[in-house]
Amino acid sequence: MKGLARIGKDKIGWVEKDRPVAGPRDAILRPLALAPCTSEVHMIWGDIGDYMPTDRVVGHEAVGIVDEVGSEVGDFKPGDRVIVPAITPNYLRTPSQRGFAQHCDGMCSGMPFCMAKDGVFAEYFHVNDADAQLTPIPDGVSLEQALMIGDMMTTGFYGAELANVQLGSTVAVFGIGPVGLMAVAGAHLLGAARILAVGSRPNAVKVAREYGATEIIDYHNGDTVAQIMGLTDGKGVDAAITAGGDVSTIGQAVEVLQPGGTVGNVNVMEHAESIPIPLGAWGGGLGDKTIRGGLCPGGRARMERLAALVRYGRIDPGKLVTHRFTNFEDIEEALLLMHEKPKNLIKPAVILE
Amino acid sequence: MKGLARIGKDKIGWVEKDRPVAGPRDAILRPLALAPCTSEVHMIWGDIGDYMPTDRVVGHEAVGIVDEVGSEVGDFKPGDRVIVPAITPNYLRTPSQRGFAQHCDGMCSGMPFCMAKDGVFAEYFHVNDADAQLTPIPDGVSLEQALMIGDMMTTGFYGAELANVQLGSTVAVFGIGPVGLMAVAGAHLLGAARILAVGSRPNAVKVAREYGATEIIDYHNGDTVAQIMGLTDGKGVDAAITAGGDVSTIGQAVEVLQPGGTVGNVNVMEHAESIPIPLGAWGGGLGDKTIRGGLCPGGRARMERLAALVRYGRIDPGKLVTHRFTNFEDIEEALLLMHEKPKNLIKPAVILE
Amino acid sequence: MKGLARIGKDKIGWVEKDRPVAGPRDAILRPLALAPCTSEVHMIWGDIGDYMPTDRVVGHEAVGIVDEVGSEVGDFKPGDRVIVPAITPNYLRTPSQRGFAQHCDGMCSGMPFCMAKDGVFAEYFHVNDADAQLTPIPDGVSLEQALMIGDMMTTGFYGAELANVQLGSTVAVFGIGPVGLMAVAGAHLLGAARILAVGSRPNAVKVAREYGATEIIDYHNGDTVAQIMGLTDGKGVDAAITAGGDVSTIGQAVEVLQPGGTVGNVNVMEHAESIPIPLGAWGGGLGDKTIRGGLCPGGRARMERLAALVRYGRIDPGKLVTHRFTNFEDIEEALLLMHEKPKNLIKPAVILE
Amino acid sequence: MKGLARIGKDKIGWVEKDRPVAGPRDAILRPLALAPCTSEVHMIWGDIGDYMPTDRVVGHEAVGIVDEVGSEVGDFKPGDRVIVPAITPNYLRTPSQRGFAQHCDGMCSGMPFCMAKDGVFAEYFHVNDADAQLTPIPDGVSLEQALMIGDMMTTGFYGAELANVQLGSTVAVFGIGPVGLMAVAGAHLLGAARILAVGSRPNAVKVAREYGATEIIDYHNGDTVAQIMGLTDGKGVDAAITAGGDVSTIGQAVEVLQPGGTVGNVNVMEHAESIPIPLGAWGGGLGDKTIRGGLCPGGRARMERLAALVRYGRIDPGKLVTHRFTNFEDIEEALLLMHEKPKNLIKPAVILE
Repeated sequence: MKGLARIGKDKIGWVEKDRPVAGPRDAILRPLALAPCTSEVHMIWGDIGDYMPTDRVVGHEAVGIVDEVGSEVGDFKPGDRVIVPAITPNYLRTPSQRGFAQHCDGMCSGMPFCMAKDGVFAEYFHVNDADAQLTPIPDGVSLEQALMIGDMMTTGFYGAELANVQLGSTVAVFGIGPVGLMAVAGAHLLGAARILAVGSRPNAVKVAREYGATEIIDYHNGDTVAQIMGLTDGKGVDAAITAGGDVSTIGQAVEVLQPGGTVGNVNVMEHAESIPIPLGAWGGGLGDKTIRGGLCPGGRARMERLAALVRYGRIDPGKLVTHRFTNFEDIEEALLLMHEKPKNLIKPAVILE
Repeated sequence: MKGLARIGKDKIGWVEKDRPVAGPRDAILRPLALAPCTSEVHMIWGDIGDYMPTDRVVGHEAVGIVDEVGSEVGDFKPGDRVIVPAITPNYLRTPSQRGFAQHCDGMCSGMPFCMAKDGVFAEYFHVNDADAQLTPIPDGVSLEQALMIGDMMTTGFYGAELANVQLGSTVAVFGIGPVGLMAVAGAHLLGAARILAVGSRPNAVKVAREYGATEIIDYHNGDTVAQIMGLTDGKGVDAAITAGGDVSTIGQAVEVLQPGGTVGNVNVMEHAESIPIPLGAWGGGLGDKTIRGGLCPGGRARMERLAALVRYGRIDPGKLVTHRFTNFEDIEEALLLMHEKPKNLIKPAVILE
Repeated sequence: MKGLARIGKDKIGWVEKDRPVAGPRDAILRPLALAPCTSEVHMIWGDIGDYMPTDRVVGHEAVGIVDEVGSEVGDFKPGDRVIVPAITPNYLRTPSQRGFAQHCDGMCSGMPFCMAKDGVFAEYFHVNDADAQLTPIPDGVSLEQALMIGDMMTTGFYGAELANVQLGSTVAVFGIGPVGLMAVAGAHLLGAARILAVGSRPNAVKVAREYGATEIIDYHNGDTVAQIMGLTDGKGVDAAITAGGDVSTIGQAVEVLQPGGTVGNVNVMEHAESIPIPLGAWGGGLGDKTIRGGLCPGGRARMERLAALVRYGRIDPGKLVTHRFTNFEDIEEALLLMHEKPKNLIKPAVILE
Repeated sequence: MKGLARIGKDKIGWVEKDRPVAGPRDAILRPLALAPCTSEVHMIWGDIGDYMPTDRVVGHEAVGIVDEVGSEVGDFKPGDRVIVPAITPNYLRTPSQRGFAQHCDGMCSGMPFCMAKDGVFAEYFHVNDADAQLTPIPDGVSLEQALMIGDMMTTGFYGAELANVQLGSTVAVFGIGPVGLMAVAGAHLLGAARILAVGSRPNAVKVAREYGATEIIDYHNGDTVAQIMGLTDGKGVDAAITAGGDVSTIGQAVEVLQPGGTVGNVNVMEHAESIPIPLGAWGGGLGDKTIRGGLCPGGRARMERLAALVRYGRIDPGKLVTHRFTNFEDIEEALLLMHEKPKNLIKPAVILE
């Protein structure tokens, strides 16, 4: 079978691979829809890929149709159309039992796609522990919407959850790429009163407002921290989500945070040794400003709840998709587009039906 | 009346002041016992004092006897012997209503002693909202024990609470000065199974073991992080408390922490612009390692519970006191001792009865 | 001055009282808008009033204009237009410091209106600790909306908070009187995917749907529990809010709850010795179904956040008001209407401007 | 092979069964130590057993030696000596992913022993998902201690966790059978200051004091509620754990609880339709007294942490064992003893080495 792989540093290409084999609890799926992610860009053109073997098939955002199931799979059968989470942990490990399945076998090991096995940009892909990971696409949910659930929605929402957004909170969201937009939507769904979103691309600004941003902070108009402090009468915010920028963004979030508040980071950072937390803004160590950052939960329980939010009309994650393709091979162009990041891009998607 | 004051940069001296005046909800106390704290050292010989007016009386650790109460004080009368918290917030403010009274009127404003008014190293001192702050010394609790409750115990225990120590946790405590020792005791009281305490001074090591440390990490024996990872078979710890060191200590704590774990900082840091969080150990932003740091809760509800722990024999905080004085004026020598920090010192105390 | 009082068992009438006096931290207000509440009905025609002295002015839902402030009030001055919470606790007490100000001086003592002093249905009324309780009506928020914040919104939302509604939860709300409707809105704002609301009055059903109910359960159509189990494919719900009914309603909530779920009660129950929790549905004691019930938080921090939700358009609590009056004396008719409870009533209100 | 089974209503007897078969992730163990539990008594002489098929082997408290492992088991091999949790859930199900593995496939389904397959009172017994359930007996932990971890310790400690015991809490524990004694120990380990234990049997009272009870309430000396209120100066307790009694005990716990407090139940109740919650003590629905009750967590992560507490000397659960047997067949006598419950019994155990 054919798959789109990282064939070397900064290089992608099509490779021929054996169709994956299903163990007793596993499933083999064919893609119904695929999307590239900034993580792939990091894997191929950034530092993360140095840990990947050559010719590893990339991709971890997919909606699929079940092609084959192992003997112990009870809830799915060939032909079922399912949401696939980017994170498919081993729920039998002790970190999973303690609520951190994302790190089931060591930090970030809950994402076998690309990291421990071939990813989803292939004619067939493998899902471990299918009953524990997959969930049927509910009636009324489009492929485009379903495709945005498995990574974008769970990651952005996790940012809002990490940041401890509460009823009536004022929230700052740094970055309104696809994850940041979902963080806006997540903060909105958790009951934020006021959402200050930092970004400037017109397409993204439009969707940010639709997802609940009450104000947009454009760094072209001056210092971001100063703008947020000005808009909040010098009080700052209750919660801050960092979903873009670089290591300095966490520090900005700490600056605008009130004591008792929380930063929730879901941004992958590279090209730095450390994240500088500003000592003064952190109260010399005593400011009661919590800093959290994590890998989104995956798995079936999470997917079911997120899918229910789409099904019952609480959120339309399909708004993220700005560029549509219709052939399997187009995933290459979609991925290159994600790397180039033209101004009008939020998220490209390949929808096969 | 007489008080020991910061009379200039790096200088202390006795000053003559008016006896403080009690508002309707306030009380005026005379000291029964006093102790200097590292915070005073920071205020006088460090950066923090730059914000203090000249001749400000220092000191915030005291046990006192009530000398006068305002017209609205209902629970105390002259002659009552009481525990005084270092942190005496304004509980009427909105941050207090949200659970962060320490920051009632802005970051760390919950400590008016020294920062907003004269401290406790005086013949008389003022306590705002007496009914909301003070608690009687329970029967069977010595002055020495009571003296260690108002700051050392609440601060060290807060470190263990911030770090989310749970039943059976493995915990690392960085620093075993008086606050670090109380963090050891706090982690023990919260149900930690194993406590790795980082320190080397023999007196402190002895008390650390008595308070529940199961192993001592001495940096003279090699890299601290490497020692902790070795002792935990490369797994690291569930929780880390930083109660000493400098800005780099937080990074060490992040290094030894498992994903899903929490750093709880109660150390005041100076002489740096920022705290460097190691990007790799923090999972590039995705490691689910929470970083918290805060100012201890004060107030009466907290004091009551801590005093109950001493009364019912769960902890003897009096073990911290290595150097005893008996005259009021000795507080000067005690404070200088805290600045010099001889090897055998944990905590000096002036016990007036 | 004139006030509407409970002048005996089952009787209301106008009484002449002295204008209340402001202590140093207090304020005296004149009403801008008033609403009666089911609690008044309980106080006058039910059991609760047995604890009230004769001629106690009733009423605890008001928006007011400041007429006078005590010497220590710093944030308000005569002429300020403010939201008044029904619950105005003493934040200096230890239960308040532990997060339960509603019970500051014993169970439910955080509501001095009616219970410990005259209520708000008077030409002037007294607010203790004004800086800690009041908040200005934000621009763009109508009197009608502001009036619904101080009790209805905080109570209904507390139900959703007690029930631990999470992103994507399926929630059952028992009762869609004004509090139940606000519980629907609260569950919606906290991110519920699916809200099953139990009720039948057409006016209330309409507002329930506008506030986010996805399905309506009408007991005329069969057993409530059976209907909910049927709609959820026998799985039951993640969270249940009881905001109406009687002591048997809690049991219904336990029946429809999944293990791991929570019942949040905000209904005042009378005329029974005890609430029967069905042993089988509660797993014989082992079902991990949490039962909570509480008095809503009041105070300024809460009011600020709720007012922000209205200001930023997250919720329009004014939809509750079905019957409007314009003269101060009309509060009597409004209260009688609340007692009669005609079918088309949700909430009556007296708006004086 | 031979096993001790429920051979009919109120009857036990030895039956001959096939040796269980290990699936790919399972293990077959031989017992090293066994203990009967009150749950067995319920199963055989009470209502629960009506759901069990005839000749079902009983028993769920065991320490074992691995005899055989399935092909996918990676962490254990024949000859390993391991702690066996009473609760061995399917961690792949969605309730497990949400933190309620005890109810993985419906209420209380996380305990397959006895309920869904033969229990441990047999020459060989089956453990599902061995890597996710078992943990090696740490050095220095005796068989007797290890035997008490898998059910008694996790259950009693869960009571203290459900009841939200905090640093300095005052806690009431209703019942000091083996689970209640472990609840005392759990409350102590979580930092309770004061523990009021309700019970009277001299053996149990002695161990209760050793585990941290500060006062003993004997119902022979008067009404339990009145005694607790008297000892707490009418204030009541912060947390209450119910580990014995009947459906009325929960009501007593609610009576002695302060607003803001929590009841944690780990008692299995029978012979009643419902649990009566006293309406007045529950504040008519508004008292903010939380009622929780649940089945203890099992699984490996839990066992590891509990075993660490024993290994590091925080608790000696072996103190529960008052009656010792040494032959496999003695489990019958031990079980009958558990049914008779002589006054000097806490827990019988069969230790085979």
